[in-house]
Amino acid sequence: MPDSRSVEQLQYALQRLPGVGPKSAQRMAFYLLERDREGAFSIAEAIKSALSKVNHCQRCNNFSENDLCSICVSKSRDSRLLCIAETPADIEAIEQASAFKGMYFVLMGHLSPLDGIGPEQLGISRMLELIETGEVDEVILATNLTLEGEATSDYIADLLLQRDVSVTRLARGVPVGGELEYMDAGTLSQAFSDRREI
Amino acid sequence: MPDSRSVEQLQYALQRLPGVGPKSAQRMAFYLLERDREGAFSIAEAIKSALSKVNHCQRCNNFSENDLCSICVSKSRDSRLLCIAETPADIEAIEQASAFKGMYFVLMGHLSPLDGIGPEQLGISRMLELIETGEVDEVILATNLTLEGEATSDYIADLLLQRDVSVTRLARGVPVGGELEYMDAGTLSQAFSDRREI
Repeated sequence: MPDSRSVEQLQYALQRLPGVGPKSAQRMAFYLLERDREGAFSIAEAIKSALSKVNHCQRCNNFSENDLCSICVSKSRDSRLLCIAETPADIEAIEQASAFKGMYFVLMGHLSPLDGIGPEQLGISRMLELIETGEVDEVILATNLTLEGEATSDYIADLLLQRDVSVTRLARGVPVGGELEYMDAGTLSQAFSDRREI
Repeated sequence: MPDSRSVEQLQYALQRLPGVGPKSAQRMAFYLLERDREGAFSIAEAIKSALSKVNHCQRCNNFSENDLCSICVSKSRDSRLLCIAETPADIEAIEQASAFKGMYFVLMGHLSPLDGIGPEQLGISRMLELIETGEVDEVILATNLTLEGEATSDYIADLLLQRDVSVTRLARGVPVGGELEYMDAGTLSQAFSDRREI
């Protein structure tokens, strides 16, 4: 960039966004400066406001602007059920499906030793404390069905073996609306081995 | 998002970035808040600093922190040659190739009536003023070889017809390192019709 260190710095900073490389960062910087300065301002403001306000719910670890999030303070949730999921986005999807009326614990990721994410980073000990209060009857493991998600669930399930709770996982099989013709082998074999009587 | 309007607002703001939809915005917001708060801060700072410092060079219309950019104030450039390009990124590519030692005018886009971008938004009248100073002998049209870029070049070429400057455009043909087998029909026919004696 001739003569404009600020544009360069902006391009450089935008590359810290996930999935944004040098070319997209350049495109974003030019777009913001040339076509949407108001939008640029609102992004900067939104980031600063979120940074100062958003923290973690002290119970479920989800994002929250208060000490406890609205789910954790709600009287209408069943505190005997604890669903363990990877991200706030997962919680949002589950809530939108109205599929679950218990409480949550959000790991904020999955085990990934290569990225330096171990049990400590996922707040596993806080999760165990929550379970050891004795309020929880059933822990539902709802991590993603990816390699990392499965490994994380296995790790947690092992930890819970010695404890006095039942541990379940989400059902696996053909998704609603799915056509068998297009299912992968893993899903099909899971659907067969987990088949249920009707 | 349970209970966090700031996260929602951040997701919403990030969608103003080009190429970022609701899902990527959510991923970005969670990533910034959970894994890179320092990066988030640096993005907000870089945006604010760029917004306050970056303006346009009064001569070539490129981004600049001063009234005139470093190319326009340089004594070593040939002011008889004026290259017209679409974006600062194009200028950067040309400069990096060291292919051109004249001056530039940056349109900051191309004609796109549907998006409300006409000759006025591209600063065409300022470009004409620049040419009418009489310093310029040759105008080199270096817009992209896209439909919009070509239309923009055609429009400018028409305007310059009545003026006392020669108007040229970049050569079109097979790119260096290109294999004929993989060239599209348009490029091949251009390469044939523009063939040169050796």
